[in-house]
Amino acid sequence: MRVLSGIQPSGPLHIGNYFGALKQFIELQHKNEAYYFVADFHALTSVRDPKLLREYTHDVIVTMLSLGLDPDRATLFVQSDVPETTELAWLLSTVTPMGWLEKCVSYKDKIQQGLPAEHGLFAYPVLQAADILLYDADLVPVGQDQKQHLEITRDVAERFNRVYGGESEVFRLPKPYILETSAVVPGLDGRKMSKSYGNTIEIFDEPAVIRKKAKKIVTDSTPVDAPKNPETCPLFAMFALFATPEQRAQMDLRYRQGGVGYGEVKGLLAEAMIAHFEAAREQRRQWLAQPQRVREVREAAAAKARATARVVLDRARVACGVGS
Amino acid sequence: MRVLSGIQPSGPLHIGNYFGALKQFIELQHKNEAYYFVADFHALTSVRDPKLLREYTHDVIVTMLSLGLDPDRATLFVQSDVPETTELAWLLSTVTPMGWLEKCVSYKDKIQQGLPAEHGLFAYPVLQAADILLYDADLVPVGQDQKQHLEITRDVAERFNRVYGGESEVFRLPKPYILETSAVVPGLDGRKMSKSYGNTIEIFDEPAVIRKKAKKIVTDSTPVDAPKNPETCPLFAMFALFATPEQRAQMDLRYRQGGVGYGEVKGLLAEAMIAHFEAAREQRRQWLAQPQRVREVREAAAAKARATARVVLDRARVACGVGS
Repeated sequence: MRVLSGIQPSGPLHIGNYFGALKQFIELQHKNEAYYFVADFHALTSVRDPKLLREYTHDVIVTMLSLGLDPDRATLFVQSDVPETTELAWLLSTVTPMGWLEKCVSYKDKIQQGLPAEHGLFAYPVLQAADILLYDADLVPVGQDQKQHLEITRDVAERFNRVYGGESEVFRLPKPYILETSAVVPGLDGRKMSKSYGNTIEIFDEPAVIRKKAKKIVTDSTPVDAPKNPETCPLFAMFALFATPEQRAQMDLRYRQGGVGYGEVKGLLAEAMIAHFEAAREQRRQWLAQPQRVREVREAAAAKARATARVVLDRARVACGVGS
Repeated sequence: MRVLSGIQPSGPLHIGNYFGALKQFIELQHKNEAYYFVADFHALTSVRDPKLLREYTHDVIVTMLSLGLDPDRATLFVQSDVPETTELAWLLSTVTPMGWLEKCVSYKDKIQQGLPAEHGLFAYPVLQAADILLYDADLVPVGQDQKQHLEITRDVAERFNRVYGGESEVFRLPKPYILETSAVVPGLDGRKMSKSYGNTIEIFDEPAVIRKKAKKIVTDSTPVDAPKNPETCPLFAMFALFATPEQRAQMDLRYRQGGVGYGEVKGLLAEAMIAHFEAAREQRRQWLAQPQRVREVREAAAAKARATARVVLDRARVACGVGS
């Protein structure tokens, strides 16, 4: 199966991104032909600093490589290295009813979060449809909140096929692969970990920073000796992500029996987190020391992605009658 | 000065297009560096037949060459041969407030004319801004009805310059060059000549067709002997476009004195029209016999346009931070 997904370069990636997406993306590379792209065209709707955008884009590549993405298995490319994307987006625009975009909740959500009401934000689902259809993707790993956009992608593809396809299909219809929702990671304040809440622990925070942030995780004021409910404790939920099944069961028991203090759990969590990313941190040091190698990975991936994209774009151009 | 304008390949060009735009475009090639493009990306919003769209696109090129466009002076290219256009359109989208597009009268007009309310139609002014800004155009010849779109182009350019420009300007601000409005050509029914009214005479209609259509021009029922008002007579207006100043003055007099019948005027008009395009018709025969030469003109123009576009697009990419 060909799997495709994108990652927004809107800042350093945190452990919410890791469990919610990146870890699963990397696992998918083993049994699938994986295409992952760094969505810098999309990020323009929120990052208005060219230097930062370039840094974030580079950082996503280095992060994925450090976490185990194998550039010989998976194609990790940058969206803007494949200009075919925007051309297909225009072709799709001409068969996308305004009503489909107007009903998108994600546009309204982003405006409410304070992003400026730019056309790029409104047209986002059309560019996303191009991102996906350009690679004949079979499966698109998405969070529950991105499901509507994939439905629009399918609708747009079907409409284009109907208007222009004749007897042959122009676009392959992708299916969603819903990412594990059990992996919703709480942030320092107990809400979902999210950059926009400022409650994140970054994957590659320095150990000292991780220890410091762990201490800030919000807990209730149950005394050390009193029994606690692990099921409603965000600190426990975070600990569980990094613990072995055995450690998890043990901690569950200590919570229910009483006698464990939150401070102790925070300390154990911080050490587990640091240990969990230790190998990746070392990988990262190595990748950062070889910017030329990162560039080569990026260029090779772009060339491969463009070759795939070209075939599909040409199919679409011929179908609708642009070009010679 | 660098002049730029586009022509929609939505069907054979008529004499309304000729006097309103094409003739003036060709004149502008002598004292300016002229770029003209066949807007096939735009035409997708109305032409849904790939074979027709390809034919219309080719026909615009042949028509312009036959009318005297000199490919060594002017760059006559096809919009979709320059994919940089859609990429710049996306970059511009991210700084274009929705409100600017929502207030566009041309979108509302087109919906009222029965075109489907697709996103491509709504996003048209953004693609148009990209068309213009991509070539550092100084002057954009536009009809009065296109003036609003050029204002949006200027606004978008200014906004991008302000957000990303820093000390240097990313885009040159184009100025409108309003096409002569005295050249509004009446159609067979007396309304403005327009494909959507079905009241056109095509530039390259066969002489027999021109004679037949001329007979159908709507006139009032003033008898031959009675005086007539040339100022309110669409037939006179059309005759005047093809007559010499002397012939025009003479006919004006005959109208006012009475004694000229509409049938006679229609006959004179048809012959004047046929004679006016005779040389161009011969040119057209020659161009149609050499499709390979047309292809070479198209390819050379595309190469030149892309080279110009690349410089501007790279300026924009660096400014906003996409690409490496």
